[in-house]
Amino acid sequence: MQALTFDGQLALNHNYPDPMLQPHQALIEMQLAGICNTDLELVRGYMGFSGVLGHEFVGKVVQGSSEWLGKRVVGEINVADGTCDLCLAGIPSQCRNRTTVGIDRHQGAFAQFMALQTQNLQIVPDAVSNDSAVFVEPLAAACNILELVHISPRDRIIVIGAGKLGMLCAQVLKLTGADVSVVVRRAKQTQLLNRWGIEGKKRDQFPNQHATIVVDCTGTAEGFAESLSLVQPRGTIVLKSTYEGIPSANLTRAVIDEIKIVGSRCGSFEAALRLLQAKLVDVESMIESRYPFAEALRAFDHAFEPGVMKVLLDF
Amino acid sequence: MQALTFDGQLALNHNYPDPMLQPHQALIEMQLAGICNTDLELVRGYMGFSGVLGHEFVGKVVQGSSEWLGKRVVGEINVADGTCDLCLAGIPSQCRNRTTVGIDRHQGAFAQFMALQTQNLQIVPDAVSNDSAVFVEPLAAACNILELVHISPRDRIIVIGAGKLGMLCAQVLKLTGADVSVVVRRAKQTQLLNRWGIEGKKRDQFPNQHATIVVDCTGTAEGFAESLSLVQPRGTIVLKSTYEGIPSANLTRAVIDEIKIVGSRCGSFEAALRLLQAKLVDVESMIESRYPFAEALRAFDHAFEPGVMKVLLDF
Repeated sequence: MQALTFDGQLALNHNYPDPMLQPHQALIEMQLAGICNTDLELVRGYMGFSGVLGHEFVGKVVQGSSEWLGKRVVGEINVADGTCDLCLAGIPSQCRNRTTVGIDRHQGAFAQFMALQTQNLQIVPDAVSNDSAVFVEPLAAACNILELVHISPRDRIIVIGAGKLGMLCAQVLKLTGADVSVVVRRAKQTQLLNRWGIEGKKRDQFPNQHATIVVDCTGTAEGFAESLSLVQPRGTIVLKSTYEGIPSANLTRAVIDEIKIVGSRCGSFEAALRLLQAKLVDVESMIESRYPFAEALRAFDHAFEPGVMKVLLDF
Repeated sequence: MQALTFDGQLALNHNYPDPMLQPHQALIEMQLAGICNTDLELVRGYMGFSGVLGHEFVGKVVQGSSEWLGKRVVGEINVADGTCDLCLAGIPSQCRNRTTVGIDRHQGAFAQFMALQTQNLQIVPDAVSNDSAVFVEPLAAACNILELVHISPRDRIIVIGAGKLGMLCAQVLKLTGADVSVVVRRAKQTQLLNRWGIEGKKRDQFPNQHATIVVDCTGTAEGFAESLSLVQPRGTIVLKSTYEGIPSANLTRAVIDEIKIVGSRCGSFEAALRLLQAKLVDVESMIESRYPFAEALRAFDHAFEPGVMKVLLDF
């Protein structure tokens, strides 16, 4: 099959071996996949990844048990053992022995076919298009903020890092009735936010230390420092992106002002599908461009450009 | 009056001006004061402090309104304006315009007399000795963990940094029924902990990533890194000490493992007094030595020695 592989170098492989179906797995034929910032980081060397990239996808089950056959599905990326203490505590996304689709010791979605445990699959309702369903994984990650942090309708929330994930976080947080605004650097970001009735402002238009919650989607030490400067005493900073290297962090400010810092990762696919089905979140406006899978390398070049929203791969 | 001042250099000043009593203040004659690690840091240059040091004390009101006159008191160190948004939100310890006794623009307790707002005072019950009452401020800071973080009796808690504050945190946390143990480096620390039925172990005797809560009392980048290595996914690290400089912190681990990091500072004096009155916490075993105030400089030299517990100043 065709597969986009990374092994120190990104390559479109035309004779990659087809996946071997294991028990409790379904074989998915890809229909549409999305390029995530994590993919870009993996290509820059993060996690020392090698293999087939990709973890945002929608596809059709073409082999597996009858209940799944022919179904249009999305898939939770953490493949859990179901037996470790964290699985038994109800947190399979944090399974101690997990592999992760397209990120850590599991074949990814940038390939014609992928095998995945059926327990990871969610059927996509007919009312949700492929263009929307391909956003389920990052939208679920945005929903995870609400799983880990109590958001009050009285909160003043600032999202910093107005990229693909930041835009989803802002939309999800706005649904709580809280006062949500976003630190923007580009006119395009403001235009997108205006479409959703969310205010985008330059950093210097925000007062220091007045947000009850700051969501840091920057993944940079500077972004974390800005988050600390925006959050009020006893406020919360949610970390949504991994950081390059080991950043410096003013933990003394966190102590003196009693700041809470909450790392947040993957979330509920069911919740993301409900929001898409109810049309409470608009993801399709975030599509920057789409490429046939045969042009995946060009698609990656495009995705690497600064300020680019979602780039899709069409199978 | 006699006062221990710091102005780039620590000095016992014999003719320091007596405090001028302002409205709503009481004049306190010191009886006993304690040297805190923060005092040591201030002498090393933290906060650019200059003036009279000291914020752990017990004394007697010798001037002020009749309801306070003659009372033995301890005092909350944050002097709040009572009018800012954080005061009105019920968090006067985080007042945006506060001064802090002996730390930030407020005369400290290492002096024969100190003036303090009566709203900051708490009367010490007769059943609580001066030797115990002098620990109320740090014990309140330990209680603050329970104010900011929900501790479950099922938690596995590790305290790292087995100094004065760490020992108080361990004792307070043990009262919740949770499984509390402490990372120790000295035999003396183990002996103290054994007295309270708390287990002390070397770092390499703890498994990685199995604590639900780690309380970092080290105030070092290395200590924070150890805390991250001890806490399990979805666990919590409580930061109890300020850090030298801007430490490096592996925020990516916090994201991937969804760790919560909670800065914690001052706590409830009422709660600390209740615990002392009920003899649920033993502070007097933590007294390393006591010096007459005239020998305060020698007391500081002693307090600076590694592994030393509480050094007191007797007035």
